[in-house]
Amino acid sequence: MKILIYNEGVHDKEDWVKKVYPKGIHGALAEALSGHDVTVTTLDDAEEVVTEERLENTDVMLWWGHCAHDKVSDRVARCVADAVRRGMGIIFLHSAHLSKPFRLLMGTSCTLKWRDDDRERLWVAAPSHPIAAGLPEHFELAHEEMYGEFFDIPHPDETVFIGWFAGGEVFRSGVTFTRGAGHIFYFQPGHESFPTYYDVNIVRVIRNAVAWAAPIRRTGPLVCPNTAALEERK
Amino acid sequence: MKILIYNEGVHDKEDWVKKVYPKGIHGALAEALSGHDVTVTTLDDAEEVVTEERLENTDVMLWWGHCAHDKVSDRVARCVADAVRRGMGIIFLHSAHLSKPFRLLMGTSCTLKWRDDDRERLWVAAPSHPIAAGLPEHFELAHEEMYGEFFDIPHPDETVFIGWFAGGEVFRSGVTFTRGAGHIFYFQPGHESFPTYYDVNIVRVIRNAVAWAAPIRRTGPLVCPNTAALEERK
Amino acid sequence: MKILIYNEGVHDKEDWVKKVYPKGIHGALAEALSGHDVTVTTLDDAEEVVTEERLENTDVMLWWGHCAHDKVSDRVARCVADAVRRGMGIIFLHSAHLSKPFRLLMGTSCTLKWRDDDRERLWVAAPSHPIAAGLPEHFELAHEEMYGEFFDIPHPDETVFIGWFAGGEVFRSGVTFTRGAGHIFYFQPGHESFPTYYDVNIVRVIRNAVAWAAPIRRTGPLVCPNTAALEERK
Amino acid sequence: MKILIYNEGVHDKEDWVKKVYPKGIHGALAEALSGHDVTVTTLDDAEEVVTEERLENTDVMLWWGHCAHDKVSDRVARCVADAVRRGMGIIFLHSAHLSKPFRLLMGTSCTLKWRDDDRERLWVAAPSHPIAAGLPEHFELAHEEMYGEFFDIPHPDETVFIGWFAGGEVFRSGVTFTRGAGHIFYFQPGHESFPTYYDVNIVRVIRNAVAWAAPIRRTGPLVCPNTAALEERK
Repeated sequence: MKILIYNEGVHDKEDWVKKVYPKGIHGALAEALSGHDVTVTTLDDAEEVVTEERLENTDVMLWWGHCAHDKVSDRVARCVADAVRRGMGIIFLHSAHLSKPFRLLMGTSCTLKWRDDDRERLWVAAPSHPIAAGLPEHFELAHEEMYGEFFDIPHPDETVFIGWFAGGEVFRSGVTFTRGAGHIFYFQPGHESFPTYYDVNIVRVIRNAVAWAAPIRRTGPLVCPNTAALEERK
Repeated sequence: MKILIYNEGVHDKEDWVKKVYPKGIHGALAEALSGHDVTVTTLDDAEEVVTEERLENTDVMLWWGHCAHDKVSDRVARCVADAVRRGMGIIFLHSAHLSKPFRLLMGTSCTLKWRDDDRERLWVAAPSHPIAAGLPEHFELAHEEMYGEFFDIPHPDETVFIGWFAGGEVFRSGVTFTRGAGHIFYFQPGHESFPTYYDVNIVRVIRNAVAWAAPIRRTGPLVCPNTAALEERK
Repeated sequence: MKILIYNEGVHDKEDWVKKVYPKGIHGALAEALSGHDVTVTTLDDAEEVVTEERLENTDVMLWWGHCAHDKVSDRVARCVADAVRRGMGIIFLHSAHLSKPFRLLMGTSCTLKWRDDDRERLWVAAPSHPIAAGLPEHFELAHEEMYGEFFDIPHPDETVFIGWFAGGEVFRSGVTFTRGAGHIFYFQPGHESFPTYYDVNIVRVIRNAVAWAAPIRRTGPLVCPNTAALEERK
Repeated sequence: MKILIYNEGVHDKEDWVKKVYPKGIHGALAEALSGHDVTVTTLDDAEEVVTEERLENTDVMLWWGHCAHDKVSDRVARCVADAVRRGMGIIFLHSAHLSKPFRLLMGTSCTLKWRDDDRERLWVAAPSHPIAAGLPEHFELAHEEMYGEFFDIPHPDETVFIGWFAGGEVFRSGVTFTRGAGHIFYFQPGHESFPTYYDVNIVRVIRNAVAWAAPIRRTGPLVCPNTAALEERK
C-alpha cells in the first residue's frame, strides 16, 4: 500500500522529543509501517507534497499535528478532506483531533479535556473489529497524555477502544467514521514526550488500521448530477 | 418555543412560486408552526438577524435555500453551525443539503442525484421515532423533485423516512444527526414549485421535528480545558 | 404515565438488603417515580400480574433481577419482549443484563466482567440526550459493583454514560436500543447492597429515562402481510 | 475459507424450482462460492451436520430457508446463534429473515411486507463498504419477490443496499449487524422461482459478503467472569 505520513515535525526539533524520537515521530511511524511504500512529509514541505495528484495515488494517510495546526494551509486541509471523501483512508493520531482536516470531516468542535502525563489502560470495546485483531482485551501505557470526555465528535461508526485513565477519566480512544467513500480512524495515544509509537500493541493497532482504511473504491468529482428517469413516468 | 425560519427568498419573488406560495415559503412554514414564537429572515436581512445573541435565544432554526447558498456569508454559516454545536436545534429543508451550514456540520459533500418533477412516496422506516408520530406507514406527494442516492452524508443517527420515486430512485429522505449538543433533521421534500408545505403529513413532520429538535442543554464555549486529576496519582 | 416495576424481590428479604432498602428495591424505585401511576410486581406474583392485557396498558416497565432470572417463566419473558416490540418502553437495571427479556431483545450473550464493591464515576458521553438532561458532566457512586468491558451487547443506538471504576475498568453504563416500536434503556448502577437508588443523580436518570421511553405508537400483531401493489405493474 | 451452506431444500424438490435451480439453491450458491472449501447441508441432514464442532471449524455460514423454519430444531438454531456470537460469520438470504437463528440474533419480530413477483432495483447506499466493492451504483432484477418496509430489525450497523420495487415499495435490502464477535449480513434478493443466484451482481455481493464476514477472532465460552481489580483500591 502507498502510505503518506504527515507529521508537523515542530516538537521533533526539540531535545526533549529527540530523546524519545531521534528520527522524529514520522520516523517511528514509518518504521511501524515497514513493508509498505511509505512517504513522509512535515510542515516544512507539506505545501508542495500534499497535492490532489499525490493523494489520488495514496491509499492511506496518517496525520500527526499539535502546535502548528494553524500553519497548515486551508488548501492542504481541503485537499486532504476531499481526497478522503473520494476514497483515501486516513488515520488521525493523538492531538490531530484539532487538525484542520479532521475538523472539516467531523463538523464538530472536536474539543475534549486534557492533562499532562497520566497512565492509560485501553479496553477493546469491539473485539471483532479488524482494527482490534490480535490484541489482548486490554493493554496499558505507563505514560500518556490524558484526553477525557466529553469528546465532541459525531456518533462514531464504531467505538473500538475506550481509554481508562488513572486520574479518573474515560475517553473514546479509538473511533471509526465514514465520510463519502473514505474510511477514517481516530486514535488517541501518541503524545510526543512518550515512546508510545514503539509499543507493540500500538504498532499493531496502526498496522491494522492502515489495512482497514484501504480504499474500497475511488470516486470522481463530488457533484450533483441531473439524471434521466430510469422508469417511464405515467 | 422560539423558532427562527431562514428562507433565502429569491425564488419566492418570481410569479411561478408566488402562485404556490403567495406569502413565500417562509410564510407557509410560519403557518405550519402556528402556536410557536416564530421569527422569519431571508437573504435580504440575514446578515443583521442571524447573530450569536439571536441564536442563543432561538430553540430551533429552519433553513430553506437553493440558488443563493453562496450569498450567505461565511460568518452567518459559522454562527449557525456553532449555535447548533452548542445546543440549538435545526431542520434543513430540501435543497438546504448544499447550504453552507449543513455542509459545515456534515463534513461531507452532501451531493445527490436530482431531476425535476417526479412523484414521491415516503415510507416510515422508524415508526417509533418522535418525528414519525401520528403518521401513516407511507404517504404520497403527487409532485416533488427527485433526490436520489447516493446521498453523500455521514451515517445518520436514524433514518426516519425512505423516499420512493416513480422514476426509479430511492432516497434517505428524513435523517437525524447529533453535532455537539445540537439535534439536526434533514428532510428532503419541499420544492419551490409544489405545494408540499401545505400537505397535512408534511406539516405534521415539521411540527414533530421542531419538538424533537428542542435543546436539551446549551453548552458554553467549545474549548479544550486542561483539568486537574480527579484521583490522586500513585 | 403508567409504570410497572418488576423486582424479583429475593435479596430484599435478607437483612443485609433490608438495611439499605427497607421497602425493597421496588419500593425505592416507586418512590423515585412518585407522581406517576406505579404498579409493583415481584417474582411472587409476576406470573399473574405480567399479562398481555396489563402490558398493553403499561407505558414503561422497569426490570430489576439478579439471582432468580431462571425462575421467571418463558411466557412472562416472551410477553414482556413482545410488548416492547409493540411499543412499550422498558428500563433494564443493573444485573437485569442477564434477565430473560433483555437477552431475548438483544440477541447476544449480554455477558460482562464483574467484581464486588468498587467505586464508580459515571461520565456523560451524550450530553444532549434526553436521559442526560440536567446532569453534571460526571458524578460518582462511592460504592457500586464493578461491571466491565467487554459487554456483549449489539451496538447501542446511543451510549449515554461511560463508567470509570477505581479498580481499572470501563463500562458502557447507560445505553439505548430500539426494538420494533419499543425504546430500551439499560443502566448499570444499582447493586442491592448499596443505596444507589436514593442518589439524586441516579433518580434523575431514571425519571429522565422513563419520560424518554414513553411509547410513541403501539403497533398491532407482528406479522408479515401480503400486500397489493401500490403501483400498476407494467 | 471454510463455508457451510444451509438450504432447507424443500421447494427445491418441486418441478417449478428444479427448472430454475436443477442442483438446488444450495448448488447455485456453492457454484457462486467456487474456490472456497464449501460444505452443503439441507433440512434432511442438518441435525447431524450442524454441530458445535463443525461450526467451530466453519468461517462463514449461509442460510436459506422459507417454508420449513419450524422444522429446524431449537438445538440447531441455538448452536448457530452461539457460533455467530463466538465469531463465525453468517449470511442470511431472502426469506431467512424469519428463520430461527436470525430471529434469535436480532431480538425483533423480523416481519415485513411482501408480494409475489415484482421488479427490483437495488441501490448502493454505502459505496465504500467492502460488500459493495466492484458494483455499479444500481443494478436490477427483472423478477424478484417484493419485500417492503417496515422491516422490523434493530438499527443495522450499515445499510449497504436499498431496494426499489416497481410496485411502489422500498426495502433495506442489504444490512449488516455485529453480534458478539460475529459479523452478520442479511440480503433480501433470492426467491426460489427466479434465477437470482446466477446474476453476476448478486454473485459478487455474496462473494464480497463472505470475505467481509470472515472471523476476526473466535471467542471462548460466553460467561461473566469475576475478575480481580487491576488497580489497588484506596
